[in-house]
Amino acid sequence: MSSSDIFIGETIGTALLILLGGGVCAAVTLKRSKARNAGWLAITFGWGFAVLTGAYVAGGVSGAHLNPAVTIGLAIEGGTKWSDVPLYLGSQLLGAMIGAVLVWATYYGQFHAHLTDPEILAAPPAEEGMVQEKAAPDAGPVLGIFSTGPEIRNVVQNLVTEIIATVVLVLAILTQGLNDGGNGLGVLGALVTALVVVGIGLSLGGPTGYAINPVRDLGPRIVHSLLPLPNKGGSDWTYAWIPVAGPLIGGAIAGGLYNVAFK
Amino acid sequence: MSSSDIFIGETIGTALLILLGGGVCAAVTLKRSKARNAGWLAITFGWGFAVLTGAYVAGGVSGAHLNPAVTIGLAIEGGTKWSDVPLYLGSQLLGAMIGAVLVWATYYGQFHAHLTDPEILAAPPAEEGMVQEKAAPDAGPVLGIFSTGPEIRNVVQNLVTEIIATVVLVLAILTQGLNDGGNGLGVLGALVTALVVVGIGLSLGGPTGYAINPVRDLGPRIVHSLLPLPNKGGSDWTYAWIPVAGPLIGGAIAGGLYNVAFK
Amino acid sequence: MSSSDIFIGETIGTALLILLGGGVCAAVTLKRSKARNAGWLAITFGWGFAVLTGAYVAGGVSGAHLNPAVTIGLAIEGGTKWSDVPLYLGSQLLGAMIGAVLVWATYYGQFHAHLTDPEILAAPPAEEGMVQEKAAPDAGPVLGIFSTGPEIRNVVQNLVTEIIATVVLVLAILTQGLNDGGNGLGVLGALVTALVVVGIGLSLGGPTGYAINPVRDLGPRIVHSLLPLPNKGGSDWTYAWIPVAGPLIGGAIAGGLYNVAFK
Amino acid sequence: MSSSDIFIGETIGTALLILLGGGVCAAVTLKRSKARNAGWLAITFGWGFAVLTGAYVAGGVSGAHLNPAVTIGLAIEGGTKWSDVPLYLGSQLLGAMIGAVLVWATYYGQFHAHLTDPEILAAPPAEEGMVQEKAAPDAGPVLGIFSTGPEIRNVVQNLVTEIIATVVLVLAILTQGLNDGGNGLGVLGALVTALVVVGIGLSLGGPTGYAINPVRDLGPRIVHSLLPLPNKGGSDWTYAWIPVAGPLIGGAIAGGLYNVAFK
Repeated sequence: MSSSDIFIGETIGTALLILLGGGVCAAVTLKRSKARNAGWLAITFGWGFAVLTGAYVAGGVSGAHLNPAVTIGLAIEGGTKWSDVPLYLGSQLLGAMIGAVLVWATYYGQFHAHLTDPEILAAPPAEEGMVQEKAAPDAGPVLGIFSTGPEIRNVVQNLVTEIIATVVLVLAILTQGLNDGGNGLGVLGALVTALVVVGIGLSLGGPTGYAINPVRDLGPRIVHSLLPLPNKGGSDWTYAWIPVAGPLIGGAIAGGLYNVAFK
Repeated sequence: MSSSDIFIGETIGTALLILLGGGVCAAVTLKRSKARNAGWLAITFGWGFAVLTGAYVAGGVSGAHLNPAVTIGLAIEGGTKWSDVPLYLGSQLLGAMIGAVLVWATYYGQFHAHLTDPEILAAPPAEEGMVQEKAAPDAGPVLGIFSTGPEIRNVVQNLVTEIIATVVLVLAILTQGLNDGGNGLGVLGALVTALVVVGIGLSLGGPTGYAINPVRDLGPRIVHSLLPLPNKGGSDWTYAWIPVAGPLIGGAIAGGLYNVAFK
Repeated sequence: MSSSDIFIGETIGTALLILLGGGVCAAVTLKRSKARNAGWLAITFGWGFAVLTGAYVAGGVSGAHLNPAVTIGLAIEGGTKWSDVPLYLGSQLLGAMIGAVLVWATYYGQFHAHLTDPEILAAPPAEEGMVQEKAAPDAGPVLGIFSTGPEIRNVVQNLVTEIIATVVLVLAILTQGLNDGGNGLGVLGALVTALVVVGIGLSLGGPTGYAINPVRDLGPRIVHSLLPLPNKGGSDWTYAWIPVAGPLIGGAIAGGLYNVAFK
Repeated sequence: MSSSDIFIGETIGTALLILLGGGVCAAVTLKRSKARNAGWLAITFGWGFAVLTGAYVAGGVSGAHLNPAVTIGLAIEGGTKWSDVPLYLGSQLLGAMIGAVLVWATYYGQFHAHLTDPEILAAPPAEEGMVQEKAAPDAGPVLGIFSTGPEIRNVVQNLVTEIIATVVLVLAILTQGLNDGGNGLGVLGALVTALVVVGIGLSLGGPTGYAINPVRDLGPRIVHSLLPLPNKGGSDWTYAWIPVAGPLIGGAIAGGLYNVAFK
């Protein structure tokens, strides 16, 4: 796989992932969106089909990791060269930032309508919510469209949740080598991965909003901090390291577990 | 592929697409429908499985473009001859109109019950809604079953949203050439495309209702203007060019992007 | 295909179809069911996966028609011998009756709790409802679990709706011959058919509850009339011919259309 | 298949099944979960994709039974050696217990928030509910996350429901031998099985919460009785034998039916 294939596939694929994934969070959150309040099933299927789209488009080009946790897991397993890892990670972060900007472009009017609505600005954060940031004193009303935040803010608990959820994801992706004879992500593999991601969201997303991907959280958070959104509030940087570290640890554990148990 | 294959496949396939796609909008909108208020997930899955049905039936006959944006993208990519484009587009428009008439036939009694209900006729348009036309002074209460309308009426924003959503769709369809060895739309390709369309709806459908297909919007709008529906209101022709131009531009961008990035 | 294969496959496959299809109607309707009021999406996915289960189990045995409309369509198309048609239809009707009895066995306690509840017995039928029988003076509160009923009772409209919906179904099934080289229902074919059925339900099920299968309606209606359910009310026999005739006409039209357009 | 393959595949696969399956019950039940009250569709899709994940990861290793009812059915059918059965069952029970502990770790903060909430502790059990244990005097407010409980407590009815639902499951899994040439669980087989499980949940889950798997119920119930959860209440051991016996009987019936009807 050439460097240019990795760069193109991972950048475009991750941009599609975040465009559709962040998009569904915008769709169910923002005022003047036809999908407002469409519910948790909509969010989880939206993220799953975001994975499907990105993985399907990039699968034949770069193998469609789209996620540093997957790249780390594959490097430990041996399917990806360690020397390619920096290019994978850089392309993924770039793609995630492009995707977040595209969410903003797609929902430009809705962002403005939401962030200038007096009722929304005056409302205290709800006690429980699908995409809201909880217990973050500086988090604004649309940060949840860009980045994840925990319902209960506790470093150890939040890390454990992200690690467990990411182990499930990366283990399923590594297993594709068993199922397709090692020929990289096939169409059926992309479909199964997408539905596994829906499952992880439904089952393990309750506590932290399932980042399970460092760039999925970090890239859009950087974009949130840079975009000229009115009344956007802070970007909750104190939490930002958890959805980076947790998934990386989870990917490494999955790679090691795969080597020990399945090889 | 013969002209007759193109004509038959695209006409029947697009008719099925619009019958089921318009059908789900009728199902969740109209009085005396068992599916009334079934929600945004129902609409997005309904449109996705409409794509699946049309693509599956027409795939082996005409390649199942069912959408001028796809045809333009494929012509730019080289998979479709430019000389075939007019026949594809004409057949798609004809099919879309047939599909819209079939929606009317299927929901004949429901249309009448809805459009003669004093409460519905007296109600002002809701501020946010899944299939309603917003801010269109002449739009009637069932236009949203036939054609799309934006939640916030702004030419640039609406065009941008339709362009971005269509790029995602056409890019995914062009990628099938990478995944199936160029043998045209396979069964698995139809399934993935359908689920990508569910994803586009969930994630990018909030602002404009995701036409992402010129004939999906124009064909039923023409039928709306011709059908003898009581109290149907206007067909909002001032908006009609956006869901035509946006998807065509998006399809062209996707074709160019594919040629530059993936070839 | 031997007579015994046809008998076994169609009886067991149709019993599974009706057990799961009628089951989801019981699940969302009956008092003391964990799935009560789970909504239209639950009903349509439930019926779709009912088709998947029946078609998957019976596919390799009898070809998994599970529906006289499919058998008629295939006979007209030439894939099924006319001399096998009576055995197909008889086995399907038997299977449908067995399936309906199994729904009753599965939800025995719920049926009793529902049909002896004073509030439910006193309530007038709702104006709109997912599985209720409308405007049938003698229909009881659980008939909708067994058989379909229209929201608006009109012979022509109800027939047209059932015909259109069945044409879509049978056309998609006949197309499998194009997609799988004529080797009968494959696993992917069963999956696509199941999702097409979800789509038909979401999009075309609003007016009549989409029988689209004569035995799906007739078999359980016979069982409803025979079961010793307390306070069950009438079986609405005046409507019973429509979900038989409509799908049969639709299947025949699909067979003819397929021969003219796709051969 | 080596003993070590069976042990590793069944333990890890069943742990994934219960982590995601129990996880979705925690997600929709517990206070301070983003998915709280996400509904019956979320639960059924969550369990279905839990099966997909476990079956996909373990399929190439142990054949991915993940369920003693499946192992018994396959032993009767002849696909699994009787001498391997004890190892399958032991590994499955161990995996189920590990999965339940992982649910607790993932939702640690949510369990504590829920079980120390005065309102939740004071509330009487709801009359109808998705995951609650009904009519069990000693059952606590989170037992439904671990184990199943019937809406109406009746030994015969509950057994019949579990038997019927398990026959459907095991019959579909045994049929894979017909569809894949006997090569064990393929990727498409895992996908179809997962969707059949969604269907069983939607259609047959209403009365008892569809254990359809002895270790799915027993393993987490043991863990519930051991975990140091505050105010957890009893583990309802009087019901515990039914979701063990019912699925075992159902698996045996399916194996016998398969041998008689499909061989």
